[in-house]
Amino acid sequence: MTYGNTFAAWRDNTPAWPAYARHKFVQGLGDGTLPRDAFLHYLKQDYVFLIHFSRAWALVITKADTVAEMRLAAGTVNGLINEEIALHIKTCAEAGIDEATLFATQERQENLAYTRYVLDAGHSGDLLDLLAALAPCVMGYGEIGGNLAAAKTSDTYAEWINTYASAEYQQVCHDVGLLIDGAVARRLGDDPTSTPRWTALQARFAMATQLEIGFWDMGLNP
Amino acid sequence: MTYGNTFAAWRDNTPAWPAYARHKFVQGLGDGTLPRDAFLHYLKQDYVFLIHFSRAWALVITKADTVAEMRLAAGTVNGLINEEIALHIKTCAEAGIDEATLFATQERQENLAYTRYVLDAGHSGDLLDLLAALAPCVMGYGEIGGNLAAAKTSDTYAEWINTYASAEYQQVCHDVGLLIDGAVARRLGDDPTSTPRWTALQARFAMATQLEIGFWDMGLNP
Amino acid sequence: MTYGNTFAAWRDNTPAWPAYARHKFVQGLGDGTLPRDAFLHYLKQDYVFLIHFSRAWALVITKADTVAEMRLAAGTVNGLINEEIALHIKTCAEAGIDEATLFATQERQENLAYTRYVLDAGHSGDLLDLLAALAPCVMGYGEIGGNLAAAKTSDTYAEWINTYASAEYQQVCHDVGLLIDGAVARRLGDDPTSTPRWTALQARFAMATQLEIGFWDMGLNP
Amino acid sequence: MTYGNTFAAWRDNTPAWPAYARHKFVQGLGDGTLPRDAFLHYLKQDYVFLIHFSRAWALVITKADTVAEMRLAAGTVNGLINEEIALHIKTCAEAGIDEATLFATQERQENLAYTRYVLDAGHSGDLLDLLAALAPCVMGYGEIGGNLAAAKTSDTYAEWINTYASAEYQQVCHDVGLLIDGAVARRLGDDPTSTPRWTALQARFAMATQLEIGFWDMGLNP
Repeated sequence: MTYGNTFAAWRDNTPAWPAYARHKFVQGLGDGTLPRDAFLHYLKQDYVFLIHFSRAWALVITKADTVAEMRLAAGTVNGLINEEIALHIKTCAEAGIDEATLFATQERQENLAYTRYVLDAGHSGDLLDLLAALAPCVMGYGEIGGNLAAAKTSDTYAEWINTYASAEYQQVCHDVGLLIDGAVARRLGDDPTSTPRWTALQARFAMATQLEIGFWDMGLNP
Repeated sequence: MTYGNTFAAWRDNTPAWPAYARHKFVQGLGDGTLPRDAFLHYLKQDYVFLIHFSRAWALVITKADTVAEMRLAAGTVNGLINEEIALHIKTCAEAGIDEATLFATQERQENLAYTRYVLDAGHSGDLLDLLAALAPCVMGYGEIGGNLAAAKTSDTYAEWINTYASAEYQQVCHDVGLLIDGAVARRLGDDPTSTPRWTALQARFAMATQLEIGFWDMGLNP
Repeated sequence: MTYGNTFAAWRDNTPAWPAYARHKFVQGLGDGTLPRDAFLHYLKQDYVFLIHFSRAWALVITKADTVAEMRLAAGTVNGLINEEIALHIKTCAEAGIDEATLFATQERQENLAYTRYVLDAGHSGDLLDLLAALAPCVMGYGEIGGNLAAAKTSDTYAEWINTYASAEYQQVCHDVGLLIDGAVARRLGDDPTSTPRWTALQARFAMATQLEIGFWDMGLNP
Repeated sequence: MTYGNTFAAWRDNTPAWPAYARHKFVQGLGDGTLPRDAFLHYLKQDYVFLIHFSRAWALVITKADTVAEMRLAAGTVNGLINEEIALHIKTCAEAGIDEATLFATQERQENLAYTRYVLDAGHSGDLLDLLAALAPCVMGYGEIGGNLAAAKTSDTYAEWINTYASAEYQQVCHDVGLLIDGAVARRLGDDPTSTPRWTALQARFAMATQLEIGFWDMGLNP
């Protein structure tokens, strides 16, 4: 399933993409060698990440031009806050992290850098700046989940892999891809790569990709 | 059903509240004398209002401190954008306003003044400033709907009245009341009326109430 | 002195521009027939306007891409807040409005609608959306001041006219014109009128022009 | 010269403060052992920091309640953008970093984390949240400059030390201290440490202090 033209263009022009999509942390998820304490540390930081990521998707709504642009974002925000976060708390509990511990997680700088960069992309620019910063996480996880589902040699982290390889999550990536393509067409026209803003949007996507790499590095460094 | 302590305090200290809740437009909804063209004009402006009102509820999410504060807002935003707005388009169609006409509605100044005031309350202040500006609309419509359901002498506008008198909408008002009380307790403590910010929050609620009056005035002036 | 290409294009494609630039209030400033109480009422509302207008220029800085884009805005904000507002208080005092009265001015809806629309243009969009909404006020006053200086038949309001006809204010209009042209070139390229965003930016300029007309109407309606 | 009561309270309740104010990087500035390449690397990152720091001070203006609260911020923003940044470019040139190199500086994650955290503090909260996040930098540099001026054993970095030990910069710290005390009194009253928000504001100050430590760490890691 395709994630849209814009994502493909941004991704294919981000030299650091493989360093994100095939990071040592990701490899460890696929072959089961990721240390359990690293995974638990990642889960706790990811809980905090989800909260600010939800704020960023809410910011999308405030910067949308049309109801069509607002629809997916509204469903995404509701899904993140009223389903995903509860599910994450449950996953953490099953992994041995109780609520008190989870809620007391100290936000790591690599985590904070990422989410606040995304939010600032939205506040300093327009919807395209925000979507360019959100895309590596949304679609990157879809790509990673799909790759691991096909290539994993261990079931240790099968539940995590299945979350992002699932038809449901792949549909999210597809829909966000459509949202981005539409938002780009509306603001930049039908030859976006030739417009003055393309370089800056590509740079935002690249920076967010670097911050994803930083997040995985953090994951290996409890 | 109560709408919470904070709303009650703000409402009871807003001299202009009856000018909003018992406005001539509201009376016309209850006795059926509201001219049809005024109602259709109101419906078109209300469509535009709903879009920006949804943006304001999304802004609530970006300014929330806790997941609990985010939950209701996320559900509200999703309900507004993915249900309410579609329902509004349908209501307009049934009333003879086709989509093309509806989408081409020129936003009236009284409408723009209100929604952009609410959004600015959020951007210039914190969550309490935003909630104080949102409350007159949310709870005011609940109060008006309930009053009209009990006292209407005409069924001309029964559908509109029932929307806001419904158990579902009353529950929204109740839940938003809880959100506000909780947000106030968290930031101002358990004796909020004695805090330095109370006067300014009361003033925001009063300004939003004045803007609601302006919206009804606009409704009588197609 | 020119106010730049972008302003000229927006202005020349705004049918309502003469209704703003040659408004009855403006005519009254030029022939001295503007009632004194209307002028004093306008001065009080303009004080409140200046405060929020300063906030909008500060928002420009947060949305600038380059230091060059930030420079003029920073000087403008400092001039507005640390000089212009003090001067306005003095002008009001000389006109018989003491500080207590001035600071207690109740913000009129036509005033609030305008400034909060401009601020929302910035928060919902990017720098171009904000500049398109700011331009009618900045350059419009320059055009009006210049026109009245040349054509006035009364010196009753000579001080007001000279403020905006002055070489200093004309230079501000020129510099803001350059800021806008540069910001447009950076984001839209060298044929901006052919880009997808042009229509929306033109619409923002037109809406702000309507809100200026509303402000003059308010001025005639103490 | 005092930096106000609020800063003193926040500072004295931040266990990590000495790790910031007496960081190895700071020690190296005072005894001249800071490697030149680390200093040049720091200067380049600090140029980028100044740009976003200016945006944060501009955000202060958009969130101020009174003209008094806006005054210092407006002067600070103008000083930063129209004087400080030009001075920094000059300092870098004198140190051997030409403009092309400086403008091409790749923003380090530790730098981005800090400025975007501060900006998000402002967007997610109110003026107090933003000031709590800005304070460690403003006053911390004043304290560090003063300490180093008194205790330095080398003049290698005398120019940097004198910038922050100067009467002019100490006055800025004093004035910002007054701005913070006033803003706190206005919103929290005359016993702020007893209010519900105090803990969160203290936490923001502490997080910004941690991010300053991260900035110094980055400085030692070209």
